[in-house]
Amino acid sequence: MPKTVNWQEQMQSVVGAKGFTSAADDMSPWLTDWRGRYTGAAAAMISPGSTQETAEILKIANENSVAIVPQGGNSGMVGGATPDDSGQSILLSLRRMNRIRAIESGDQLVLCEAGVILQNLHEALADEGQRFPLTLGGKGSATVGGLISTNAGGTQVLRHGTMRALVAGIEAVLPDGTILEGLAALKKDNRGYDLKQLLIGGEGTLGVVTAATLRTVPALIDRCVAWIAVDSTDAAYRLFQFLNRRTPQSLEGFEIIPETCLDSVLRHIPGTRPPLTGAHRWNILVELVRDQADAQDPRTVAEALLAEALELGLIEDATLAASEQQAEDFWKIRDSISEAERAGGPALQHDISVPVPKMARFINEASPVIEAKFPGTKVAAFGHMGDGNVHLHVKAPPGVQPLEWMRDYGNRITPLVHDLVIAAGGSISAEHGIGQNKRAELERLSSPGRLAMMRAIKTAIDPKNIMNPGKLVPLASGHSGS
Amino acid sequence: MPKTVNWQEQMQSVVGAKGFTSAADDMSPWLTDWRGRYTGAAAAMISPGSTQETAEILKIANENSVAIVPQGGNSGMVGGATPDDSGQSILLSLRRMNRIRAIESGDQLVLCEAGVILQNLHEALADEGQRFPLTLGGKGSATVGGLISTNAGGTQVLRHGTMRALVAGIEAVLPDGTILEGLAALKKDNRGYDLKQLLIGGEGTLGVVTAATLRTVPALIDRCVAWIAVDSTDAAYRLFQFLNRRTPQSLEGFEIIPETCLDSVLRHIPGTRPPLTGAHRWNILVELVRDQADAQDPRTVAEALLAEALELGLIEDATLAASEQQAEDFWKIRDSISEAERAGGPALQHDISVPVPKMARFINEASPVIEAKFPGTKVAAFGHMGDGNVHLHVKAPPGVQPLEWMRDYGNRITPLVHDLVIAAGGSISAEHGIGQNKRAELERLSSPGRLAMMRAIKTAIDPKNIMNPGKLVPLASGHSGS
Repeated sequence: MPKTVNWQEQMQSVVGAKGFTSAADDMSPWLTDWRGRYTGAAAAMISPGSTQETAEILKIANENSVAIVPQGGNSGMVGGATPDDSGQSILLSLRRMNRIRAIESGDQLVLCEAGVILQNLHEALADEGQRFPLTLGGKGSATVGGLISTNAGGTQVLRHGTMRALVAGIEAVLPDGTILEGLAALKKDNRGYDLKQLLIGGEGTLGVVTAATLRTVPALIDRCVAWIAVDSTDAAYRLFQFLNRRTPQSLEGFEIIPETCLDSVLRHIPGTRPPLTGAHRWNILVELVRDQADAQDPRTVAEALLAEALELGLIEDATLAASEQQAEDFWKIRDSISEAERAGGPALQHDISVPVPKMARFINEASPVIEAKFPGTKVAAFGHMGDGNVHLHVKAPPGVQPLEWMRDYGNRITPLVHDLVIAAGGSISAEHGIGQNKRAELERLSSPGRLAMMRAIKTAIDPKNIMNPGKLVPLASGHSGS
Repeated sequence: MPKTVNWQEQMQSVVGAKGFTSAADDMSPWLTDWRGRYTGAAAAMISPGSTQETAEILKIANENSVAIVPQGGNSGMVGGATPDDSGQSILLSLRRMNRIRAIESGDQLVLCEAGVILQNLHEALADEGQRFPLTLGGKGSATVGGLISTNAGGTQVLRHGTMRALVAGIEAVLPDGTILEGLAALKKDNRGYDLKQLLIGGEGTLGVVTAATLRTVPALIDRCVAWIAVDSTDAAYRLFQFLNRRTPQSLEGFEIIPETCLDSVLRHIPGTRPPLTGAHRWNILVELVRDQADAQDPRTVAEALLAEALELGLIEDATLAASEQQAEDFWKIRDSISEAERAGGPALQHDISVPVPKMARFINEASPVIEAKFPGTKVAAFGHMGDGNVHLHVKAPPGVQPLEWMRDYGNRITPLVHDLVIAAGGSISAEHGIGQNKRAELERLSSPGRLAMMRAIKTAIDPKNIMNPGKLVPLASGHSGS
């Protein structure tokens, strides 16, 4: 009589000892999301070393109806890579698949595995005079696979788009273990449904991205960072239109920072200084770059355009970073806002977008509505105004108990924010995704047609719901993942 | 007892008299594709005047399991808008929905209905100093809805991408009549699966696109068209890399034209003249443009770069069009190749792509294989080399009977061409789509995983297979559309 081999043993035999662990100490760093809001449990953590091994693991999982939770750098914002607490899932780490297979500078492509860490990709490309034009706070841990599965954004979307625009080809494993091979970078391919688009931003619910061909751009020659004061969100938007029309090929950043956020940073973050004198209701951080030898010096361009903007009455004041160090200092102010706001007291954070032309009005109109409905709260909206994406923080009234306030008001304030966003034709998730965090809100605020289509796709491609169950798709009741 | 109303009467009552016909004379121009290769029949032709009417028609169709064949300008290349010959289908014309709802020049967006004809869109935008950067031969009849549903390409893909890159938002009706509202142009939106990506290039098999928000770019200030001679496809590729690295923001066209195609045009198309003296194995048509006031004059750029290319030995000779008329003349040569080749005898045409870096080698290696296997044939590959997309014509031996030869050899030569394309990691449909024409080849040459995923999506979203049955998706046997 043949010895019965259970599915865990089968999986272990696929990946070998170095790809399998069920020891609590090995797994625990990866079972809580980095913001500490979700903690789960897993039967084992499996780290395949190849696409083929990943395919065999999924085949076994599918045959045995075992849930698979793919994970890259575990730096997501919505609990999308944290398993539930049943302890029945497999945490599938892609971190061992971290080879950059080929850099093709002449064709501006790089072929890499899912586990490549963003910062390593940046460094490898810099050696070749190339650049992968997407960056974000978690670049030291975020992986290519995670960035693709969450359609990551960051601070360079304005010119280069989100991850979706940078993926030229994908290799993935479908829930039944089939390998979907699509790494060839075809500029034109009209063979029906563009399947890779479903995996980009699919949060691992339709399969596992194992490798990708990404587009690169030339390394930067130089940049000019400007700090600009404007008197209203409308002026900010007019400035954006002005710069975008005049320098569409070099405008890489347009971030809005309200006075309150700047004050918060200056108060809580050591070593920060105000870029401009005087008080200004709104600040804009602009980055102009040059990556072509025969393009104009971005500093010259910035000086001319800002002089013109001042003359046109679009801006109140402006200063250009005099050195790379000062450019870094300006960006540090922008990048420290979340930390500074946290130091200032509890806040509910919302990653939302509206069409770019509607952002000025949205900030103006939504803020007083929220503050009026929840007396004592203060709204701060900052971030990627050029993308129509702000991070909208609702700060607690002074003196409240943080945990209590978050618990009591989270479920009241966030739905209001989201209702306002939907009314403005926007999205309740601009760049962070849905994960566990926003699934109920996605269900509440999606049209029946959209929900039905998402459910139909999920159920068709992953009928046993083994891929990252409980994330993203609010399945109809009766499904295990709902 | 209530009077029984059949589904045709229900549909007629939705769209009224001017939106409904079942007269053979009204329908017949739309029941044969423009190349005359497919002819079908329909129970009626319905032309809804609004999204709401379209939704009601689809709801009735779904309830009664009536096939719907959406159609725009009927200028497709693969029979994708021609019904089968059962006479049971409804031909759903979107041509009445032809309003441009809004042009937002400041935000570089245009909101238009599916039936807007491309040329009309071009003209309306030109009045506003804007440009929709996609054009193709059928622009006088092709509609926005058809262009989206086939992810159309054309001659400006190099810089601006295919239709997929130009769609900012979509409104569509799903097979059960649900309206999928997604016209808001959100630069960032991570609410799960990007459903519009399925409708783009979906060939009407998952629903009907009724309106879209499209991205525009500034109108051209000027352009410089160059005709260049090179001695090999490798040299052509090196020239492409050289120009693309040096002028990525202004290179809008890079077309390859073999000597045989040029000869064919000069022989068969009245009024054409050779741009260069002497015989050259390969010709390249390059277009450099300027759409920003402070950008460099494209003529100055072209002169400098081509002088450098000549010095580097990349090219044999070059000439710049001295006037807009001459620029038009150069493009006329390129655009007349298909017509000239037809005049020269029967040919099997293939719209194929491979990764750009592989195109030179593909042309070099595939052509002799085909010519050796089918003695007397001549291969001509021309077109969008910068996109990795050529139109590969296999010309019949002199003296054959055209219809007989096409019949006897079509099913032997085309599969060989496609096998060579797949071996090079390419696509058997670069820009024309699958339709009826390539469905069997798609089935033969797709991986099981890809086929299964496409079938699963089609079946999940259109379980009754009412949307454009028999097109694109090779359903498994047992399905009515297979």
